[in-house]
Amino acid sequence: MTAARFSTDVYAQRLRAASAAAADAGLAGLVITPGYDLRYLIGSRAQTFERLTALVLPAAGDPTIVVPRLELASLKESAATELGIAVRDWVDGEDPYRLVADALGASGDGEPRATAVTDSMPALHLLPLADVLGRVPVLATDVLRRLRMIKDAAEIDALRKAGAAIDRVHARVPEFLVPGRTEADVAADIAEAIVAEGHSEVAFIIVGSGPHGADPHHECSDRQLQEGDIVVVDIGGPYEPGYNSDSTRTYSIGEPDPEVAQRYAVLQRAQQAAVQAVRPGVSAEEVDATARNVLAEAGLAEAFVHRTGHGIGLSVHEEPYIVAGNDLRLEEGMAFSVEPGIYFPGQWGARIEDIVIVTADGAEPVNQRPHELIVVRH
Amino acid sequence: MTAARFSTDVYAQRLRAASAAAADAGLAGLVITPGYDLRYLIGSRAQTFERLTALVLPAAGDPTIVVPRLELASLKESAATELGIAVRDWVDGEDPYRLVADALGASGDGEPRATAVTDSMPALHLLPLADVLGRVPVLATDVLRRLRMIKDAAEIDALRKAGAAIDRVHARVPEFLVPGRTEADVAADIAEAIVAEGHSEVAFIIVGSGPHGADPHHECSDRQLQEGDIVVVDIGGPYEPGYNSDSTRTYSIGEPDPEVAQRYAVLQRAQQAAVQAVRPGVSAEEVDATARNVLAEAGLAEAFVHRTGHGIGLSVHEEPYIVAGNDLRLEEGMAFSVEPGIYFPGQWGARIEDIVIVTADGAEPVNQRPHELIVVRH
Repeated sequence: MTAARFSTDVYAQRLRAASAAAADAGLAGLVITPGYDLRYLIGSRAQTFERLTALVLPAAGDPTIVVPRLELASLKESAATELGIAVRDWVDGEDPYRLVADALGASGDGEPRATAVTDSMPALHLLPLADVLGRVPVLATDVLRRLRMIKDAAEIDALRKAGAAIDRVHARVPEFLVPGRTEADVAADIAEAIVAEGHSEVAFIIVGSGPHGADPHHECSDRQLQEGDIVVVDIGGPYEPGYNSDSTRTYSIGEPDPEVAQRYAVLQRAQQAAVQAVRPGVSAEEVDATARNVLAEAGLAEAFVHRTGHGIGLSVHEEPYIVAGNDLRLEEGMAFSVEPGIYFPGQWGARIEDIVIVTADGAEPVNQRPHELIVVRH
Repeated sequence: MTAARFSTDVYAQRLRAASAAAADAGLAGLVITPGYDLRYLIGSRAQTFERLTALVLPAAGDPTIVVPRLELASLKESAATELGIAVRDWVDGEDPYRLVADALGASGDGEPRATAVTDSMPALHLLPLADVLGRVPVLATDVLRRLRMIKDAAEIDALRKAGAAIDRVHARVPEFLVPGRTEADVAADIAEAIVAEGHSEVAFIIVGSGPHGADPHHECSDRQLQEGDIVVVDIGGPYEPGYNSDSTRTYSIGEPDPEVAQRYAVLQRAQQAAVQAVRPGVSAEEVDATARNVLAEAGLAEAFVHRTGHGIGLSVHEEPYIVAGNDLRLEEGMAFSVEPGIYFPGQWGARIEDIVIVTADGAEPVNQRPHELIVVRH
């Protein structure tokens, strides 16, 4: 039951980069409780909640992991031992927040510097930690953003494998879409296929048929598929060592109505244009605007009710967000979804989604299934 | 895919009690993001992370739920609509923390009163909320503790059903424990049985055979079972509407060594004595001490390395904790585990665990399987 992780060098490099980023930001250091940041930094999948487990990464000095003695075994699944991280275990009755403060090191003279904490740290730990530190922490998101956003070669490889796996699932979706079956029936088949095609588990399955396709966040229901339905299928899951797939295709059970086909063709152009707009130096909001403009020119601006995309990696949703107002410049190695959609409440909806990786001069989509409205005939 | 929940009255009563408790504590109110407290208060299973969903429960005034417009559908699964809770939906670009502050109401003159937040609120939301409120929140745990700890009739009924379901699984465990099979093989059978016997999913499975039984937090491995192994099996999962089972029994593959049998008999007496010590007015630490004293008298104090138990309900681990230092007096309606164990590193371990509910004059165990070391013969 040992989970896969990258080689120890990968994590050693990430820890060095995170410490350096904390120093650059003028912080005392980072405190990272279980979650994606901890998994990113040392490959740990610990999920402790009630008792504090925390990686303490001082801006200057060596990292320490504070861990309940009962949870020491969880370190074996991470790269902590190979990385030579100091372990400070604690038992019920000790104050683990004091141990974190000690591991951050003396703050020297003057005003103590701020400590940054992982965005998932629960209030249960954050509030007592703030008390002991004598200062409310800040979010580590800013410090870790660039590191987490720019995928290294090992991560890109993992994302490609995840993309190929979810493509194999989409290749099987038409056989599941039989009139009379429910969305839940289809979702059960897809769940099995997601695992069978190599994912370690299912992260999410949206089967939005007919009017349900008009709700971008619909999951699935007992609605039976009907001849003539447009069906949005948005699926994904983690692929070892934990990088996620996420791809949407839209299916038509039987020939689509000509107006549906025409609107879908605009969506397809919008998605393609947005992918083509991706390259280093372009801003996230420009990519969003590219998709939005194509739809607006066809009078479909109102039908596109969400952002164009989200970053992806260990987490299904992470930075960069491809959304109006985000002037972040894209850089080589970023990975995110490009997924415009059109929604007509009470009627139907459609969405097309690929994960793309920013290359030196453009974008590499990790999803290769056809982008057309896929007509299913039985 | 509609999840079960209690009748609307149950939640209405809980909301009134929570508001009253916040008022008694001199708080401005409670802010509850997704997690067990939100599920307890309105039956919501929302799991949003990145965009703020929060139930705002002022100490005086009506509750509001702040929810991303894209997640409005998630309210349908909760009792929010039937409860008539005001909905304040928001779109990307709005400041949801300001909406929370508004929903808490004007703080009046003088120093603003503190706001309490659920223990699972992530730093991502807690830190910006603290900024907008101009004051660092406190944990809602103190305010909600008594409410969450004292189970109402509907919750006790759910815990009984969960207990009966896990008992049916333990009844089947002997057939899974065949020498040559791995702990992981056994865990897979147990996982299937947990769901087949009525749980909605698996929460945890520990199969600790031989030396692995000496690690209380071992999960399972590829170790093959051998004749003569002592095997700790600690299993549970949620039963609709989400109340957990959790029961441990220890098995011996073939006849146990006499010394094992003798030590196990002491453990069994310790567990029984602790259950018998449970009644209103007794403190949590007295129950812990009861189990500990029986083991200590037999020279086994060092072998019992963890607390005697933990509360259970929507969460597998919650208050009250049956541990040294906890002088909380037990009250009718509390539910917790009584699970002393003995551990001999490198050799073997054993644990016996029942969930008990505090009655007017004692304890009602929801688990009824025999407590003896169960000898499995093939």
